[in-house]
Amino acid sequence: MNLTPVTRTETDSMGPVQVPADRYWGAQTQRSLHYFAIGSDRMPHEVILAFGLLKTAAARANKALGKLAPDKADLIIAAAREVAQGKLSDHFPLHVWQTGSGTQTNMNVNEVIANRAIEMAGGTPGSKHPVHPNDHVNMSQSSNDTFPAAMHIAAALTLTRTLIPAVRYLRLALQDKAARWDHIVKIGRTHLQDAVPMTLGQEFSGYVALLDENLERMEAALPHLMRLALGGTAVGTGLHTHPEFAPAAIADIAEETGLPFVPAPNYFAALSAHDAVVMTSGTLRTLAGSLMKIANDIRWLASGPRSGIGELELPANEPGSSIMPGKVNPTQCEALTMVATQVVGLDTAVAMAGAQGHFELNVFKPLMIHNLLTSMNLLADACRSFTDHAVKGLKADEAAIARHVEASLMLVTALTPEIGYDKAAQVAHTAHTQGTTLKAACLALGYLTEERFNAIVQPLAMAKPHQAP
Amino acid sequence: MNLTPVTRTETDSMGPVQVPADRYWGAQTQRSLHYFAIGSDRMPHEVILAFGLLKTAAARANKALGKLAPDKADLIIAAAREVAQGKLSDHFPLHVWQTGSGTQTNMNVNEVIANRAIEMAGGTPGSKHPVHPNDHVNMSQSSNDTFPAAMHIAAALTLTRTLIPAVRYLRLALQDKAARWDHIVKIGRTHLQDAVPMTLGQEFSGYVALLDENLERMEAALPHLMRLALGGTAVGTGLHTHPEFAPAAIADIAEETGLPFVPAPNYFAALSAHDAVVMTSGTLRTLAGSLMKIANDIRWLASGPRSGIGELELPANEPGSSIMPGKVNPTQCEALTMVATQVVGLDTAVAMAGAQGHFELNVFKPLMIHNLLTSMNLLADACRSFTDHAVKGLKADEAAIARHVEASLMLVTALTPEIGYDKAAQVAHTAHTQGTTLKAACLALGYLTEERFNAIVQPLAMAKPHQAP
Amino acid sequence: MNLTPVTRTETDSMGPVQVPADRYWGAQTQRSLHYFAIGSDRMPHEVILAFGLLKTAAARANKALGKLAPDKADLIIAAAREVAQGKLSDHFPLHVWQTGSGTQTNMNVNEVIANRAIEMAGGTPGSKHPVHPNDHVNMSQSSNDTFPAAMHIAAALTLTRTLIPAVRYLRLALQDKAARWDHIVKIGRTHLQDAVPMTLGQEFSGYVALLDENLERMEAALPHLMRLALGGTAVGTGLHTHPEFAPAAIADIAEETGLPFVPAPNYFAALSAHDAVVMTSGTLRTLAGSLMKIANDIRWLASGPRSGIGELELPANEPGSSIMPGKVNPTQCEALTMVATQVVGLDTAVAMAGAQGHFELNVFKPLMIHNLLTSMNLLADACRSFTDHAVKGLKADEAAIARHVEASLMLVTALTPEIGYDKAAQVAHTAHTQGTTLKAACLALGYLTEERFNAIVQPLAMAKPHQAP
Amino acid sequence: MNLTPVTRTETDSMGPVQVPADRYWGAQTQRSLHYFAIGSDRMPHEVILAFGLLKTAAARANKALGKLAPDKADLIIAAAREVAQGKLSDHFPLHVWQTGSGTQTNMNVNEVIANRAIEMAGGTPGSKHPVHPNDHVNMSQSSNDTFPAAMHIAAALTLTRTLIPAVRYLRLALQDKAARWDHIVKIGRTHLQDAVPMTLGQEFSGYVALLDENLERMEAALPHLMRLALGGTAVGTGLHTHPEFAPAAIADIAEETGLPFVPAPNYFAALSAHDAVVMTSGTLRTLAGSLMKIANDIRWLASGPRSGIGELELPANEPGSSIMPGKVNPTQCEALTMVATQVVGLDTAVAMAGAQGHFELNVFKPLMIHNLLTSMNLLADACRSFTDHAVKGLKADEAAIARHVEASLMLVTALTPEIGYDKAAQVAHTAHTQGTTLKAACLALGYLTEERFNAIVQPLAMAKPHQAP
Repeated sequence: MNLTPVTRTETDSMGPVQVPADRYWGAQTQRSLHYFAIGSDRMPHEVILAFGLLKTAAARANKALGKLAPDKADLIIAAAREVAQGKLSDHFPLHVWQTGSGTQTNMNVNEVIANRAIEMAGGTPGSKHPVHPNDHVNMSQSSNDTFPAAMHIAAALTLTRTLIPAVRYLRLALQDKAARWDHIVKIGRTHLQDAVPMTLGQEFSGYVALLDENLERMEAALPHLMRLALGGTAVGTGLHTHPEFAPAAIADIAEETGLPFVPAPNYFAALSAHDAVVMTSGTLRTLAGSLMKIANDIRWLASGPRSGIGELELPANEPGSSIMPGKVNPTQCEALTMVATQVVGLDTAVAMAGAQGHFELNVFKPLMIHNLLTSMNLLADACRSFTDHAVKGLKADEAAIARHVEASLMLVTALTPEIGYDKAAQVAHTAHTQGTTLKAACLALGYLTEERFNAIVQPLAMAKPHQAP
Repeated sequence: MNLTPVTRTETDSMGPVQVPADRYWGAQTQRSLHYFAIGSDRMPHEVILAFGLLKTAAARANKALGKLAPDKADLIIAAAREVAQGKLSDHFPLHVWQTGSGTQTNMNVNEVIANRAIEMAGGTPGSKHPVHPNDHVNMSQSSNDTFPAAMHIAAALTLTRTLIPAVRYLRLALQDKAARWDHIVKIGRTHLQDAVPMTLGQEFSGYVALLDENLERMEAALPHLMRLALGGTAVGTGLHTHPEFAPAAIADIAEETGLPFVPAPNYFAALSAHDAVVMTSGTLRTLAGSLMKIANDIRWLASGPRSGIGELELPANEPGSSIMPGKVNPTQCEALTMVATQVVGLDTAVAMAGAQGHFELNVFKPLMIHNLLTSMNLLADACRSFTDHAVKGLKADEAAIARHVEASLMLVTALTPEIGYDKAAQVAHTAHTQGTTLKAACLALGYLTEERFNAIVQPLAMAKPHQAP
Repeated sequence: MNLTPVTRTETDSMGPVQVPADRYWGAQTQRSLHYFAIGSDRMPHEVILAFGLLKTAAARANKALGKLAPDKADLIIAAAREVAQGKLSDHFPLHVWQTGSGTQTNMNVNEVIANRAIEMAGGTPGSKHPVHPNDHVNMSQSSNDTFPAAMHIAAALTLTRTLIPAVRYLRLALQDKAARWDHIVKIGRTHLQDAVPMTLGQEFSGYVALLDENLERMEAALPHLMRLALGGTAVGTGLHTHPEFAPAAIADIAEETGLPFVPAPNYFAALSAHDAVVMTSGTLRTLAGSLMKIANDIRWLASGPRSGIGELELPANEPGSSIMPGKVNPTQCEALTMVATQVVGLDTAVAMAGAQGHFELNVFKPLMIHNLLTSMNLLADACRSFTDHAVKGLKADEAAIARHVEASLMLVTALTPEIGYDKAAQVAHTAHTQGTTLKAACLALGYLTEERFNAIVQPLAMAKPHQAP
Repeated sequence: MNLTPVTRTETDSMGPVQVPADRYWGAQTQRSLHYFAIGSDRMPHEVILAFGLLKTAAARANKALGKLAPDKADLIIAAAREVAQGKLSDHFPLHVWQTGSGTQTNMNVNEVIANRAIEMAGGTPGSKHPVHPNDHVNMSQSSNDTFPAAMHIAAALTLTRTLIPAVRYLRLALQDKAARWDHIVKIGRTHLQDAVPMTLGQEFSGYVALLDENLERMEAALPHLMRLALGGTAVGTGLHTHPEFAPAAIADIAEETGLPFVPAPNYFAALSAHDAVVMTSGTLRTLAGSLMKIANDIRWLASGPRSGIGELELPANEPGSSIMPGKVNPTQCEALTMVATQVVGLDTAVAMAGAQGHFELNVFKPLMIHNLLTSMNLLADACRSFTDHAVKGLKADEAAIARHVEASLMLVTALTPEIGYDKAAQVAHTAHTQGTTLKAACLALGYLTEERFNAIVQPLAMAKPHQAP
């Protein structure tokens, strides 16, 4: 009885290689595993799924254009669809830190589809008959145009199906708070110092507006991602493709995904730079900044419970301290701010990578798509976690909020249209140094009657100055 | 005879201060000069000009709404227009590294306009009569809404009037080369290694396409910059403004500039975050990446003159070396790549700053607008310099280019549709190891007749595979 | 027969939770899994191993100081050693993106050790008898001092045991090339343009020197990592610790690891900032820059094979192209430059995170240590891969190198001491524009005799001017 | 009468150029002004001063070694000393964004020294007699070794004479507060939530410790900056230098500056990478992180005055708001945090630039030194401003601090050694939900007598647990 792992022989243009018998991949994948044992990051599975869509579409187009025999095409289509459906995920073991063109992942896909197709046809894995990974699966293609096309497909799908819905989910929860808390007058704070009044609902409406603008920006990134390099082949000239290939294959991808993908207007640019990825990454890091601001505000407003600002109360999800009993910490805010910071870092690498293309190819592709998808997934997960475990359970401490409004000196601002900036400053200064109320100071200075003071200094009217009382 | 510098007394709510008699600024500007002697960066003059526009528009709106006496309003308008025209530039000495709200610059503007208006009225500078810097010039405003509004105005004007035209200027010069060089067949290069043929015109068309997409992105940044915080005053509630103030003042700014500025849809967001600036900065750093790639390509293609790639020749603008006579260096490429790198760094600071807002205010405003405008101006200047002193005089060395095409082994790719990937690889390998031509290797291996080989391997047809021959 | 996963009840101060019966972790770990389902990054196992060392040392110190009963202490020590040895790795499932203090990982460790100790004692898991995760395993500790201590231990061990040896490994291979190639005279290149001669060995000696200085810098980072926060407990005051606890426990860690760990000189700083991590990360990103330069140089020198610089030949590890047969690409250089770029990005996040501490605690700890260890491991793996698969097999094409030296115009520099800079420039210019040799130009201009020219222009003597001929 | 600006003719190897008659610079400087009209940043004057030192030392060494005639040498030395003393600052107009080797600045220096020397000798400016900018002033040198040497000299001098003293100045002021406030017991805060007590002096001692470690790190950067590229000339081989030249010239620079400069151990590394600059920049950005943390803490502790934390009071240097009378803002903290953020951005550019060297030269030199010196000067100025205008006048509000301690629930931690973590958590929870004191809750739960509670819960003893009471 043989318990050792069984291998089979696969070959490529450099010769034979042993690969695990229970895996569809071939010689080039196996070589890459050997030569690139770097780190633990694997090529993102979103890229593999996108390749599945792309290879399906390419085979259909090659078949329709009469370049690929229908039987071979159908086998490829069947196998490629399995890739697109995630059924063959165990057959894509390659690292991110491989060749910068993603060639080895393209070949991994070609090899897996070829061997799976051969298997379906009852052939011998590794024989390249009836389906050859280069001549048939990769027909009309190069790594140099398929990999960036897969990058765009993966990015667009993850953006529209994962990140945008998660941001909308958070937006909705914040909007709910904004609506519920529109009546709660609170002290505004600028420079961390007490300022003039506003409502808690207004404060949260600001967060909603930030996310609305981020949603706009993410939508605006999509048209650039819609432009696919497919059809450019090795250097952008489209060598070995039929002129109808790219339009046909890309229309197929568009139909499968429901996203309006089109051929890139200039293939030379599409292979040698990935500015759409750089820009999308810049969009994510702008979102990260908004989220950081929102999470920071919420944890500061919830600081305390006794010696902080204490205007909000976060849900107590877990014990906060291994040494201090009863402590509750803003842990969801912490996870979200860490994620936001990580996105800024991943984006820096994307920007630097995007600037390093040479001649007809940028060879930082795996890094760029790995970082972009990591950022999208981290942001999406963190938005949902933050929504469910922090925002939804957030409570306003109305008593604490009211105490702060009452105590504030910046209500003095209401007096300036009546007595001018300089006298109003004197009232505030007097109240501050003597530890009294504004009203007491104002009366003592003789600037207004109590009646007039009361008529002017009305926090709710100050918070919503343009509404009828 | 008194030769000592003459000062006059100005006052603010904290008391009297001595200021230079020949300057219009007042007490708060003078305090800021004393308290913020940090570095050598001054508040960008584009911000001052934008403030001039804004103060003009505010005074007009306040006058029209009956809040400000016509005589005071007219004085303010006259003085503010001088600020907008750059006539009072010597009166804005403040550093970037001041209060993070830009309050001191807003007060600098208020003070200069007030004193200039007082002067026009024949009054005493520093008297605050008939025009008070806070009560009249700053009427219906706060630093917290005017400074971010001025940021957006300055950014939008510099983008549309300075940077976009400069990028178009470079684009045109590259487009000219692309057109002129469309017939020159050259070897493409991927991974820095010889690849299949293309034309030099195609290569440059890629650069044009990169800039076209950058121009698209810069245009797409504008709608976000159009949204002005003006009208939010201190915390976003619009305290002390007439409901018609912001629409009126902003319409005025739109008319003066020809740009469709509108009130921000949510003032709380507009004061407490500057995501439009973060995003615009991300757009600039994407452009920087494209420019870095273009400049790198050109200097590598011009490397040599004898031991490099040598397909392009840069104009010899200056002696290249203090020790090596006759050396010519790609200095314009160097300046442009340094600028591109600087823009990436300035953008990192903007991203970090944008994430640090707290509650109702982000207090990293001066840094953000300083870096954004610096990047725009650097990129614009560098694009024009690169165009005039490198691109326009660029020459193709057609003989060197032809030699490279002839020698290339990657023409073998033309054979794959005929003999398959594996045999074609064998041909290339044989030619490489034996130092022969592809044709010799192909004939020796017996894969094709010479006639057929000649028919297939045609660089120009490979470069433009989809065109009729 | 029951096939459903079996759970048991664990409790913490918030109540009961169901956990998988075959896992040692307790209620707080389970809560964290629920509340922090963010991304796919797990707390690095190096941190868990470091916690194993730390908990062992803490129990020993508590026992020695009479604070912890010997039987409990011995149980904890036995279980903690299993953690330190990596035997319980399946019991640490938590994400990086959790609470920013790492409290949940500290509790994960406390719970696993407690339950494993209870098991060893024949008790009931979850009973907290005879070993309580907080009262006994965490005795004299807080997450706030143990987590940063574990960060430093993990960083120092990974640096000394993984990264530094890998850099030395690469250095040795480069040094070998430098020695072997010391006789090969080649043309130097500055600004990518031909310059004066040097040897290939000298060029590689520069790479060796860069790594030597990086090794110096990495060693210099160690003393800062040696300072452990352990002993500061919750806020830095050392509440609940015996004055001898930290010195004793840390001496124990030092002995176990062979590294001279000491108590941090100021616990308040050690909990609220992690500048040693920021600085170590800065050291890694400096190394990344050196590696990027080395990898870039090598791939450029190996560019071609026919239309590039072609002075070096990289080993052909795998087929380079899915479409271009016979292509060999500098893939190891690409992996290394991608890793270097990623390290710059991860470092940016570390720098930003390090700046965000508030009051007594920085709550970006998990991000910081995750990024630091990721960078160390990526750099180490990439250095070894690059050494084995690129540097060792690198060959010099001496014929190509000699051709470049012969053709170079910058040998003209040898003439300047004899005829001055201006005339030498004229010679170079003449040769360049007329396409002749320097000698021909020099003779034609009548500046030197052929004999004298030959005596002066000697590439080897120019390459090693200070050596006797 | 001639009112037009007077020019004179200067020549270089490319021909004649008109330069302003009242300036010492020559043809190459004038060409650079024409070709590099980019931005407004000028080459830092610290670099010019360093060049003055270097040219003085080079002339002395050339004279001593018999390479340069004594009369020429003495003229050069006299003129170069004027450069070193800053007397000729109006003659160095070049931009940062020029050639990446700084060649044009080296030639600017050579030209100014030559013409000033010629003037001293009674000769004709531009005649290159008796002193030639290349043959004599630049003797034994190249831009490629002098510019990086000047970078190191400028960086080391600015670090030791400007930045380190400024950090020490701030440290001293913080240390003074730490000492004065050692008796003030306050509530510690972790995760922004109330934690166990400590003293205000301890909190400030943490800031002092952070700066102490930064001072250590800055000192540790110096040895790397001590290594000068001078002696490597064009590519690192030292072509055209006497073997004694570099040691002699560098010893001279060491003596003039009092800093132990030495020749770089490997010139090839010293020209083609600037890792010492990258690392020093990393050191500055670590300092920036510490300063950000300190400034943030202080402004949060001073938040209020009525609705924030309010434990510290910042000096009121200026009116805080143009609309809210009497407002005082933490403006010095804002300037310092903006500076810290800018330093992080400038550092990103330095790191990216440092990674971009090719072959024998890194051509991002002007960017690197500009950013490094800008960061040093900004940090130094901001530290002094923050010390003088924020730290020195900082006051503790002892009453507010005491109220927070009294109210805190985290004093419950003192109970855990007596009643265990779980019961202590119950006490805290009861007090929190019922709004009572810990003592009331503890007594109600029957866990301790009042006497015992009072004996255990003593904030000062908790703050300094290891001191005898």
